[in-house]
Amino acid sequence: MDPNINELISSFTRLPAIGKKSAGRIVLGLLKDKALMNLLSTQLNQTANNIKYCAECGNLSNNDLCEICTNPVRKNNTLCIVEQIEDLWAIEKSGCFKGLYHVLGGTLSAMKGISPKDLKISNINDRIEKENITEIILATNPTVEGQTTAFYITDLIANQDIKITRLAQGVPLGSELDYLDEGTVKAAFESRLKF
Amino acid sequence: MDPNINELISSFTRLPAIGKKSAGRIVLGLLKDKALMNLLSTQLNQTANNIKYCAECGNLSNNDLCEICTNPVRKNNTLCIVEQIEDLWAIEKSGCFKGLYHVLGGTLSAMKGISPKDLKISNINDRIEKENITEIILATNPTVEGQTTAFYITDLIANQDIKITRLAQGVPLGSELDYLDEGTVKAAFESRLKF
Repeated sequence: MDPNINELISSFTRLPAIGKKSAGRIVLGLLKDKALMNLLSTQLNQTANNIKYCAECGNLSNNDLCEICTNPVRKNNTLCIVEQIEDLWAIEKSGCFKGLYHVLGGTLSAMKGISPKDLKISNINDRIEKENITEIILATNPTVEGQTTAFYITDLIANQDIKITRLAQGVPLGSELDYLDEGTVKAAFESRLKF
Repeated sequence: MDPNINELISSFTRLPAIGKKSAGRIVLGLLKDKALMNLLSTQLNQTANNIKYCAECGNLSNNDLCEICTNPVRKNNTLCIVEQIEDLWAIEKSGCFKGLYHVLGGTLSAMKGISPKDLKISNINDRIEKENITEIILATNPTVEGQTTAFYITDLIANQDIKITRLAQGVPLGSELDYLDEGTVKAAFESRLKF
């Protein structure tokens, strides 16, 4: 195989969830569409050179502050704390939240040696005061690390006079009880609401 | 979401077998590895501008003639005819063939309106004469279109005094008879060999 093509394939295998077979198929697809190959090349170059993390919330942005932080319509005094940018994207896709975000960049983990100083945690108190936040929504994942991180943040902001909420746990829409783990069924029972 | 990131994700969804979710994950992976993003950008640009089809066999190459056609060690008078470049790659990976290739670029298909003039077929006779080919291996796929194409080529070169062979059909290594289709079992029986 041509060495250039080989190198391109091996770069693609470094992407998440792309194996050698998929990478080969992707590169062959691209070789049949040179316009797309040039477009991707330009976009990757531009993105690599321009994208940075929002200084305020940790979201990705072309500017120092991201689109969400600079959008005046979204300033509704609610701050949603998420682990990763993909979580922010998932919430944005649902369209259910119009406040501001705070992306931690991970979770606390004694096992992996991740301490508060490795995450974007220290400026949460500053943000609450500066932006007149009245509600913090803890949207970390319901895993051991996610819960630990949520408890840590609750402690950190305990002296602030604000409402702290977390996302409801329960039966996902379209799922069947039969296929759910016991923890989720238990959480759904404990958080049951009047019908 | 940042419009640049959105555009990059949508370009990735145009690649084979990449959906919106995978594209998002790939782009997030890339955003955490700007060196890879720049590398991919450069490689895509170089490949788009330099790769062409080998004038002789239809393989991909940086030059007018591909690495296989210009490799003197491989000139062993055997020509293996395949449908697509991915088939050439599969045979190269097996390491079992050291002759030359001829990539048709598809198969004849009345349904899809693909006639001999849409494929790289017309120069096969010229190659046989010019390169002193003594054996043609028909490695088209065992599908209706692949077989039709193989028969068409057999007709085309009928007046040449050369050996024409096709790949054996039978039980794939590591598979179980129980899971094979009847056609494959039948082919394996009919082509059975002395043990």
